[in-house]
Amino acid sequence: MPDGYNGKIARVDLTSRTVKVEEPGEVVYRTYLGGGGLASYYLLRELKPGIDPLSADNILIFASSVISGVPIAGMVRYTIAAKSPLTGAYGEAEAGGFWGPELKFSGFDAVIVTGKAAKPCYLWIHDGQVEIRSAEGIWGMETGPAQEMIREELKEKRARVALIGPAGENRVRYACVVNELKHVNGRTGMGAVMGSKLLKAVAVRGTNKMTSHDPEKLRELSKELTELIGRHGPNMVLHKLGTSNLVNAINNQGILPTRNFRTGYFEKAEMISGEKMAETILKREEGCYACAVRCKRSVEILSGPYATSGKYGGPEYETLSSLGSLLCIDDLAAIAKGNELCNRYTLDTISAGVAIGFAMECYEKGILSRADTEGIAFTFGNPEAMLKGIEWIAYRKPGLGDLLAEGVKIAAARIGKGSEKFALHIKGQELPMHDPRGKTGQGLSFAVSPTGADHVRAPHDTPFQVAGPNLGRIAPLGILEPIPARELGPRKARNFTYLHFIWSLYESLGVCNFVAGPVWALTLPKLVEVVQAVTGWETSLWELMKVGERTVTMARVFNLREGFGRLDDTLPDRLFEPLESGALQGKGLDRGEFDDLLTLYYEAMGWDPEEGVPTRGKLAELNLFWLDEYIRERRRVR
Amino acid sequence: MPDGYNGKIARVDLTSRTVKVEEPGEVVYRTYLGGGGLASYYLLRELKPGIDPLSADNILIFASSVISGVPIAGMVRYTIAAKSPLTGAYGEAEAGGFWGPELKFSGFDAVIVTGKAAKPCYLWIHDGQVEIRSAEGIWGMETGPAQEMIREELKEKRARVALIGPAGENRVRYACVVNELKHVNGRTGMGAVMGSKLLKAVAVRGTNKMTSHDPEKLRELSKELTELIGRHGPNMVLHKLGTSNLVNAINNQGILPTRNFRTGYFEKAEMISGEKMAETILKREEGCYACAVRCKRSVEILSGPYATSGKYGGPEYETLSSLGSLLCIDDLAAIAKGNELCNRYTLDTISAGVAIGFAMECYEKGILSRADTEGIAFTFGNPEAMLKGIEWIAYRKPGLGDLLAEGVKIAAARIGKGSEKFALHIKGQELPMHDPRGKTGQGLSFAVSPTGADHVRAPHDTPFQVAGPNLGRIAPLGILEPIPARELGPRKARNFTYLHFIWSLYESLGVCNFVAGPVWALTLPKLVEVVQAVTGWETSLWELMKVGERTVTMARVFNLREGFGRLDDTLPDRLFEPLESGALQGKGLDRGEFDDLLTLYYEAMGWDPEEGVPTRGKLAELNLFWLDEYIRERRRVR
Repeated sequence: MPDGYNGKIARVDLTSRTVKVEEPGEVVYRTYLGGGGLASYYLLRELKPGIDPLSADNILIFASSVISGVPIAGMVRYTIAAKSPLTGAYGEAEAGGFWGPELKFSGFDAVIVTGKAAKPCYLWIHDGQVEIRSAEGIWGMETGPAQEMIREELKEKRARVALIGPAGENRVRYACVVNELKHVNGRTGMGAVMGSKLLKAVAVRGTNKMTSHDPEKLRELSKELTELIGRHGPNMVLHKLGTSNLVNAINNQGILPTRNFRTGYFEKAEMISGEKMAETILKREEGCYACAVRCKRSVEILSGPYATSGKYGGPEYETLSSLGSLLCIDDLAAIAKGNELCNRYTLDTISAGVAIGFAMECYEKGILSRADTEGIAFTFGNPEAMLKGIEWIAYRKPGLGDLLAEGVKIAAARIGKGSEKFALHIKGQELPMHDPRGKTGQGLSFAVSPTGADHVRAPHDTPFQVAGPNLGRIAPLGILEPIPARELGPRKARNFTYLHFIWSLYESLGVCNFVAGPVWALTLPKLVEVVQAVTGWETSLWELMKVGERTVTMARVFNLREGFGRLDDTLPDRLFEPLESGALQGKGLDRGEFDDLLTLYYEAMGWDPEEGVPTRGKLAELNLFWLDEYIRERRRVR
Repeated sequence: MPDGYNGKIARVDLTSRTVKVEEPGEVVYRTYLGGGGLASYYLLRELKPGIDPLSADNILIFASSVISGVPIAGMVRYTIAAKSPLTGAYGEAEAGGFWGPELKFSGFDAVIVTGKAAKPCYLWIHDGQVEIRSAEGIWGMETGPAQEMIREELKEKRARVALIGPAGENRVRYACVVNELKHVNGRTGMGAVMGSKLLKAVAVRGTNKMTSHDPEKLRELSKELTELIGRHGPNMVLHKLGTSNLVNAINNQGILPTRNFRTGYFEKAEMISGEKMAETILKREEGCYACAVRCKRSVEILSGPYATSGKYGGPEYETLSSLGSLLCIDDLAAIAKGNELCNRYTLDTISAGVAIGFAMECYEKGILSRADTEGIAFTFGNPEAMLKGIEWIAYRKPGLGDLLAEGVKIAAARIGKGSEKFALHIKGQELPMHDPRGKTGQGLSFAVSPTGADHVRAPHDTPFQVAGPNLGRIAPLGILEPIPARELGPRKARNFTYLHFIWSLYESLGVCNFVAGPVWALTLPKLVEVVQAVTGWETSLWELMKVGERTVTMARVFNLREGFGRLDDTLPDRLFEPLESGALQGKGLDRGEFDDLLTLYYEAMGWDPEEGVPTRGKLAELNLFWLDEYIRERRRVR
């Protein structure tokens, strides 16, 4: 039983084509854990503020965690982080699949990429080695063929490849990174950062066995969790219908984003629902390393304009809404095709959908016309517009494609003519498919997320409307009473604060929030046991929650250093307007109440209410006093 | 296996002679746990600000906790709380022994006493019943005879009696409460509050069995802990020498309070040490309910002026210093006698010693003379002065006794003539026997303690000088590196903040900090298991630490409401002066550094740095928003 933890980090400088390996030591691992925690630590220390995110000065980090690769469901996710070209703020996105564990098996916890290659390249990381190899032969390729070529060249069919397609190469500001063609680091444009560095892919393969402090305990925990997943209601639904189970549920709540967020009710929701998918195009359930949930979908359409093979996976809830209800598109096959295109080109489906929705609303209002759309009617409900839009964006087709590739914030600023109010973004990142008018904690989450509008920074608060077993699962946080989803005020501030610490912890540990989290099988105390069994640390939920809080605060400091402040922590005007139909027809958020919620949140975080700058004492408390010099100038003079 | 927890609270109004029983419900118990947490909850809700602590308006609370009485070492302590007559601030003191568990067995978790009796009375609580009985026959008696009379009258030899002697009846502002004649709720004058209500005693006896969620688990935990205590180094020392083991150790560090805190080195320390006690007057080790540590001493002196039987226990470290080194008294027998007198009269030995030390320094400086001391030389080193002083104070003998009975703050104000600088107190409470010049965390603890100078609000930071197993025991808090005892600054602010949450938790759970705590046998994760096994709550160290933080914040709000603020969170001037001799000769605290440490602490707590007022957001985060109205006026207008 080895006690403690240490691991290796590879540093790759693409400019000088050099590789170094370092061991940060146990205290760094225990303080930051991995993923978002470790990535923010390095970004804050090494990234200069004010740099162009698409220049050689950006730093791109791939990070697994101290527990990644442990053979227990849900411990698989890895982080890609850099300064975001979409927002100019802290950028981070996680993905599941097999890549994260494989990085660990290859001998590394993280890879830090600096500089810019002279010619297209990719990294080949295997068994403690890091090679920088030429990607000139595959530059320009879509993800599918590129992955195949890499595996052939390496003579390693089992190489796991995280890579970019044309959208990444073309530096679409919301280009994603995909591994195994279907697991996606979706948000904040990490694919564009890869593209800007001429880094096509990172292929990993390893046979290192993970050593852990208490393998017997891990086997027990794994067995227990697997059994529990098999009979745990919410996980059973997720297995059966995937995240697409949410389409009907959220539509019934009146908050399924529809018609560019004008309403939360899509009459045709049933047509694009998880149930419909299961009846029609579903090929099989898929999953990630060691996971019994298997919430991923693979869909197949054998013929016709939307034919798709299933190797690019299938649409998640977010995509069903962003390429579906948001655009009033009720053709499930067309959405599946759109999803495939996004994975081939490496486009984030959420931002792509919102960009197209923006264009559709501009078109409806006469701000755009057929002259701008090659004669295609950019009307809500038209699948052709959606599919063409995706292609144009990925290839930055001069005109509308190139414009939308910049994200709706820049696009609206360029178009003008009042189009800004149709651009649904926060800090430049497009809104995910959740409407804060029906769940206020989600609104706060969107507003304060360091990555801009992002739905994986804290859980939706819907489950907390009801007491019972769901609430029981967050009781170890001291949250003992249900909070109505639409409530604003002190109780909501508290709930959100605690829950986003946990979410932030998940992102640092690489834990899937469909395995852990308030409604899923793995309880918080069990997660503590997993960390303890791997590392031998006598840790606690206190210590782990504080890593979550630390990580949130680090991202805040990153953004303050880049000039962001309270004015950036807001929601698009549309969310303060009444919903046009559905269960919450007529309901909008109240600006005054929302603003007070924001103040309560800042204060709960130990940040000043004016700009959200952490106090010196809060930095001290979080063992982050080394960041004080970065924000001293932002601190209000008392 | 009952799941969850509920208990009963007895409300006794002495004015109307009525008793009511209430059940606060599971959410209240889980949020406040018991002890200091539960007591502050009720005091904040029910005590009017600005009242005279010695009037019928004060509310006196006796509180055990959800785990009190569980047959595991160290789960025995109970709290007495009220507005303190010594400080005018929040008052609270814990005691061990058997009384706390017995209260639980009698059917109650807590007793809330309001009003004032028309004639002396005592409470008899047994098997779910509360009787108010006449104490006219025992009023005026010392504790020994009074306890005997009560037991005889009740025909119950096993009644556990918490009571006051003459000092409490005479409302000496630092009168304590004693149970079994030797376990003491020492600080903040809770005995004076009993005296002011004409409440002589609270006798408890019960045969209720505690029900718990998982008795088998509790048996396991108990067995494990008992075995561990038997071979755990620090606990073995404590068993062998009691807290008196500290005399030599602290003297060697140069911070044994001597000559009224002018130096930290007492040449004769060896003569009053634990080792000397073990060789000479020690009769036997004693302990509390279910505890294997047995750190208490009983001493016996068969003849001579200092003869003592052992039924009043024996001096702890604090007493060896406050009646010994502080006064330069090197006669262990005299100190033992002084300890006996304090327990007979119910005088807090710390405040009594500091009051006498104050008088001695005034005498040395000519501010007091033989005319004030009935001809006795009030010189450092004179045991007669110490023993006479104790008697005069307890009986409020007109002149010096009555004056010192007010505490050194009031006494110095009355005497004037520069005597204020010899009055070693914070917020009116006399300094315990720890010198912050050698352990800065202790200084911060003294300064911010809601009860005034108090050594049980957070651990001394000496153990944290060294890495190794001691540090390992606080690693679940995320404290991973040793902090030198004399360091000030951000790391010290962080350590103190976390450790005082834990201490505050102990006071709410009634856990002994010689069983739990950074150097003792019971680890923090094990404590979580104890709470879980008793209650069935799936709790965590996060939830429990937050109870600690919540309780600290409630006491802060209590004091803010009474008018206290930053200026009250300070240390006596003497601690900024250099020590006159010993290992730290020449060392004093730096005012600027200490002031900055205080600011860091306020900010780490989510309090404004001007007055230490919790922000609205911090109240929300701690589920204490109901307190906002109490401090709204104190909140700085931004």
